[in-house]
Amino acid sequence: MEGGRLGKGERYLILNLKGYADSFSEASLRLAGYAREAAIETGANVIVCPPEPWIQMVSDAGAVTFAQHADPYGAGATTGFSSLSMLRAAGATGLLINHSEHQLRLSEIEFLVEGARREGMVSVLCADTVRTVVAASVLQPDMVAIEPPELIGKGISVSKARPEVITDSVRAIRKVSGDVVIIAGAGISTPEDVRRAVELGAEGALVASAVVKSERQRELVVAMAEALQR
Amino acid sequence: MEGGRLGKGERYLILNLKGYADSFSEASLRLAGYAREAAIETGANVIVCPPEPWIQMVSDAGAVTFAQHADPYGAGATTGFSSLSMLRAAGATGLLINHSEHQLRLSEIEFLVEGARREGMVSVLCADTVRTVVAASVLQPDMVAIEPPELIGKGISVSKARPEVITDSVRAIRKVSGDVVIIAGAGISTPEDVRRAVELGAEGALVASAVVKSERQRELVVAMAEALQR
Amino acid sequence: MEGGRLGKGERYLILNLKGYADSFSEASLRLAGYAREAAIETGANVIVCPPEPWIQMVSDAGAVTFAQHADPYGAGATTGFSSLSMLRAAGATGLLINHSEHQLRLSEIEFLVEGARREGMVSVLCADTVRTVVAASVLQPDMVAIEPPELIGKGISVSKARPEVITDSVRAIRKVSGDVVIIAGAGISTPEDVRRAVELGAEGALVASAVVKSERQRELVVAMAEALQR
Amino acid sequence: MEGGRLGKGERYLILNLKGYADSFSEASLRLAGYAREAAIETGANVIVCPPEPWIQMVSDAGAVTFAQHADPYGAGATTGFSSLSMLRAAGATGLLINHSEHQLRLSEIEFLVEGARREGMVSVLCADTVRTVVAASVLQPDMVAIEPPELIGKGISVSKARPEVITDSVRAIRKVSGDVVIIAGAGISTPEDVRRAVELGAEGALVASAVVKSERQRELVVAMAEALQR
Repeated sequence: MEGGRLGKGERYLILNLKGYADSFSEASLRLAGYAREAAIETGANVIVCPPEPWIQMVSDAGAVTFAQHADPYGAGATTGFSSLSMLRAAGATGLLINHSEHQLRLSEIEFLVEGARREGMVSVLCADTVRTVVAASVLQPDMVAIEPPELIGKGISVSKARPEVITDSVRAIRKVSGDVVIIAGAGISTPEDVRRAVELGAEGALVASAVVKSERQRELVVAMAEALQR
Repeated sequence: MEGGRLGKGERYLILNLKGYADSFSEASLRLAGYAREAAIETGANVIVCPPEPWIQMVSDAGAVTFAQHADPYGAGATTGFSSLSMLRAAGATGLLINHSEHQLRLSEIEFLVEGARREGMVSVLCADTVRTVVAASVLQPDMVAIEPPELIGKGISVSKARPEVITDSVRAIRKVSGDVVIIAGAGISTPEDVRRAVELGAEGALVASAVVKSERQRELVVAMAEALQR
Repeated sequence: MEGGRLGKGERYLILNLKGYADSFSEASLRLAGYAREAAIETGANVIVCPPEPWIQMVSDAGAVTFAQHADPYGAGATTGFSSLSMLRAAGATGLLINHSEHQLRLSEIEFLVEGARREGMVSVLCADTVRTVVAASVLQPDMVAIEPPELIGKGISVSKARPEVITDSVRAIRKVSGDVVIIAGAGISTPEDVRRAVELGAEGALVASAVVKSERQRELVVAMAEALQR
Repeated sequence: MEGGRLGKGERYLILNLKGYADSFSEASLRLAGYAREAAIETGANVIVCPPEPWIQMVSDAGAVTFAQHADPYGAGATTGFSSLSMLRAAGATGLLINHSEHQLRLSEIEFLVEGARREGMVSVLCADTVRTVVAASVLQPDMVAIEPPELIGKGISVSKARPEVITDSVRAIRKVSGDVVIIAGAGISTPEDVRRAVELGAEGALVASAVVKSERQRELVVAMAEALQR
């Protein structure tokens, strides 16, 4: 999986470990292991977005690793900021851009989408309404994730509570982009939610607390990856 | 060396590796090794601030490791942000706060200084004029670094070109804080600059490009650490 | 001229007075007078964007008045921020959004475009590349202004130096929006520049320093308005 | 009343009209009238901070007028930002800096305090804890306002609920500055609160919703101004 060259018909499960204490250090590594196993068992692409200090470790462990964010600067005298090339050097092969918890200016988004293309990294551009997700698609990222803020971390299923957010988005996105990968980015708590999202037209799911806070992480990751592939 | 418990009469050399491509991955690790050796050879505290993805690696290699920045949030649903506890878990035992390249709000600075104290991390609060460095000292960080922006990365020696910035700062800081460690935070390129800074009243130096861009990193780090101790 | 109801075939000259000292107080009022006269003489829409403290005065003087910016908050306990309803109450009937000197997050842009629609204000959404101006058009503002940053305030004519920025933008915008008004937003210094921009497909021009710094403001504004109408 | 030349023993009532719809246009003007009358009747300094679009109007009406905020830029190509000189030209003779609803970086605060001094404007620097208000005092603004965020707009009296916030602040501030004017900046709802704040060592009060939302604005402003003077 490389930026600009995502395979046709592929499915993606993206695990955003956020900044939870439950995601620190060994916890990231453990989830990376489950992700790798789920990918092998199901054939789905299972991607881990660890907190930044563990990108190298998760990548070294063999999981497909994306950054949760990049700063819109190049490498250089930028104390405490993380450029695309820095994250690439640490092993990230893609990144989330404009997550609802870390929003960016329009020009910064374009900088990062273009930069990711140049670095060969997969860009996953997040947006939170039908209109902004279509605007995001115009910028030609590899993937767009639609994440209605009212659903994030709430345990409300996007595919049950507001299926039209996905179907409307898919229809509207396809008018401006035939090939951007569409990810259901909020309200995914169960394998059933994943399955429904795919039925509604999504090609993947972005999951966070449901997996991080689960007591049966391995089972859940595998079941979600399986639900994607059916 | 622990937050709130810095030894009397200690001296500190802080290496800020910034976001330079020359600081990525193995380069951070190599500098961490030189830092460790210089500390052992000279008795000075030599601290490495690597780019965030390599904090864990540098810390595991046995160097005293500080973060270049922390975000003013706690652990949680904070995608792409780095809390103090996250950086602590990765091995950082201290951090730079409000570096001139990554400036913060007054209330965020207080949040981080207080938070560092609670986490047992050493806080190095940067400011760029005599007045702001005194204001910074009032917040009771463990260290204050004075970094006049016109000197940063310019190869102009703070101790030669503007020695009064250090002497005035030291005098003014001591009126509000008897024990904050005072670091010369810009315009340090040579061991001679370090020696002069100490003569002028500083107890340490914060160095970046001079070391990162040097072709003789090991020699320079050792010579600077020696200059501190004399 | 009202948000959402711009007349077909209308042309627009938008004068952005920025924060120049030459735009303060009476200077804004004087330009407002020229704008009114130029509108009457030529039939073009001539719009003045004064510094915020003089919106009420310029509006009271009878000029069509737009704000240079609005903050993405509603009315309330928002000290020092300016909501759409505040600017509306002061007499602004439209506003610039995301000017290159005052850039906004994607979600803030959507908030303001939607809010302007509800308040009956004309939204002029600025963007600086072909791709972002098309993404901007998807959000359905009343107008989009394309302002390549390398041309702003440089005295380089967008229509001469880089006519393809306008023609490519017009072509790409029309694929996603049939009715958004397209404004040439940088590199306009002379009436000739205005005329060329219209020939290339723009329906208006956004001008700043060329007018503010002119010693013959009245003549220039009238000549630009005339160039629009031909 | 001029920046750097506040009279000894003077008392100040500062009315922050915020961005409330109840403060727009004529409402600002009406409050400006009450402020003027209260100043004449009581001898106290009564200052009005209107929303930015009405600074000129309030100042023209003869009230002492402060801005709620200034942006840390000079006059120039700064679309939608408000410099000190712009606000001065509109009639503001002082300004709030770093209000809890509009917080600034440490270096921006210093820029504005220094700039206000040069422009002859009165600087009122807000901070929200004992420690930050002392740090703020080191920067030598004309006034510091202490505003514990848990009291803002809550109707809880700072002088009753947490009198130690004022007394501790006064004591700590006086160690670093003999002449900065100390303002009680939150939790002031009644004339009695004002009287208590003065007894505890404050020399003025910053009031917002209590006055803006009052149905007897004139009476309340006069009674608060009287309470100051006793």
